[in-house]
Amino acid sequence: MSEICRVTEEEVMFFDTDCGGVVHNLAYLRMIETCRTHLAKDLGLDMVGMAVEGLFPVLTRTEIDYRRPGKLGDRLRIEGRLGKVERVRFWCHFVMTRGDEVLVEAKQILALVKMPEGKVQRLPAALRTLGN
Amino acid sequence: MSEICRVTEEEVMFFDTDCGGVVHNLAYLRMIETCRTHLAKDLGLDMVGMAVEGLFPVLTRTEIDYRRPGKLGDRLRIEGRLGKVERVRFWCHFVMTRGDEVLVEAKQILALVKMPEGKVQRLPAALRTLGN
Amino acid sequence: MSEICRVTEEEVMFFDTDCGGVVHNLAYLRMIETCRTHLAKDLGLDMVGMAVEGLFPVLTRTEIDYRRPGKLGDRLRIEGRLGKVERVRFWCHFVMTRGDEVLVEAKQILALVKMPEGKVQRLPAALRTLGN
Amino acid sequence: MSEICRVTEEEVMFFDTDCGGVVHNLAYLRMIETCRTHLAKDLGLDMVGMAVEGLFPVLTRTEIDYRRPGKLGDRLRIEGRLGKVERVRFWCHFVMTRGDEVLVEAKQILALVKMPEGKVQRLPAALRTLGN
Repeated sequence: MSEICRVTEEEVMFFDTDCGGVVHNLAYLRMIETCRTHLAKDLGLDMVGMAVEGLFPVLTRTEIDYRRPGKLGDRLRIEGRLGKVERVRFWCHFVMTRGDEVLVEAKQILALVKMPEGKVQRLPAALRTLGN
Repeated sequence: MSEICRVTEEEVMFFDTDCGGVVHNLAYLRMIETCRTHLAKDLGLDMVGMAVEGLFPVLTRTEIDYRRPGKLGDRLRIEGRLGKVERVRFWCHFVMTRGDEVLVEAKQILALVKMPEGKVQRLPAALRTLGN
Repeated sequence: MSEICRVTEEEVMFFDTDCGGVVHNLAYLRMIETCRTHLAKDLGLDMVGMAVEGLFPVLTRTEIDYRRPGKLGDRLRIEGRLGKVERVRFWCHFVMTRGDEVLVEAKQILALVKMPEGKVQRLPAALRTLGN
Repeated sequence: MSEICRVTEEEVMFFDTDCGGVVHNLAYLRMIETCRTHLAKDLGLDMVGMAVEGLFPVLTRTEIDYRRPGKLGDRLRIEGRLGKVERVRFWCHFVMTRGDEVLVEAKQILALVKMPEGKVQRLPAALRTLGN
């Protein structure tokens, strides 16, 4: 397993919830994006530096399991780790917890794309050495 | 395959895009929720009627593949169909297209939950007869 | 008053609501943006055409009054009109209704900005003749 | 002026931006809501405690001026203060800055509403003594 693990924290706000009284499914993915952005920076993929060069991390797949609902005011912990790294794409794994309870688990596949051409880039060798 | 198929349409707005110049991954899922809500109504699961009784459709899993990027002003077509129906959960399948191009494909698993107890409900028999 | 008036319609989805059981304040502004985008097109300011030239409509001020709450499943009507037009900025006025009830009223000031320079542009003469 | 001032910080993510290359107007209001929620707690209005009793802070008006655009990766500081407090409504004032630059200024009026009745509540005396 990678040594690199990024933890972010969120507190559930009104805008995260819906009238079912729980956190809306889109809100978890926004929280995961924040964790993923910080994780990517730890991995040498800084979004601002890349965007200046027209390089963007592009999500190509998400698998997400919603196990238990979050509620208004909950303090959530999101833990992100690098998974497998291939030539042009890599996996990130996320676990969201509230205390001891797992609320959400997700896997995402990302690629680096050069815009505006939309051309997929080979991943940096340094990243490939970090993959699991 | 189910005869029931619901199509919704969306036009990509500024709020759907990000500074990479394309539609943000969360926006597709919001569009899919709109399609899913209409599909559910066609299937006898009307969100407003159910919410009054404290019954809520709960997303338990999403798998989504982002194949091609949408752009500002694109007119997107979202087609939703009922998939497999089990005792307490059912699948919905979605394909988002722009003209002939597939942009996004997704599968979601849903359950019906009685709130505030959080108790999963057996699905209506009528829904089970429609599943594929 | 301008002859030009654009009406858009929305149905309140789960993602529009919060755990207070009503529409979240951000959702109304997203709905207003959709109306504004169509209104702007009617006024000769097509977002896609402009974006290609690096011209973007930029919101510089919003005033919004929330008068009555919208609820899940409500069908909302958003009516947008052009207000005053000055040399570099123009007003848009919006009224959101549910049947006979006014839910939200808003005024927004916009400017046209050339990106990436961030330079405010003089408004087209044609737009100025339409202002009120 | 009130002694009570709450500062929150945000880092601009992809989901905060649009294809104009800058922060979308809705994102600032989400950030302001986070600041407002913490400010309200400091003022004795804890959203979770209140929600349990069916009391919800309801936004009745927003005035917001967008002065300079935020960009991907910016670190923003949001400072919120209590303004005037009347019998059933109170003002909050917000200033968003990036270093020395003011990006956004906003004023919001809130009321406390008992749900599901939708009845506006008299504000706690303690809050009225804090107003400016």
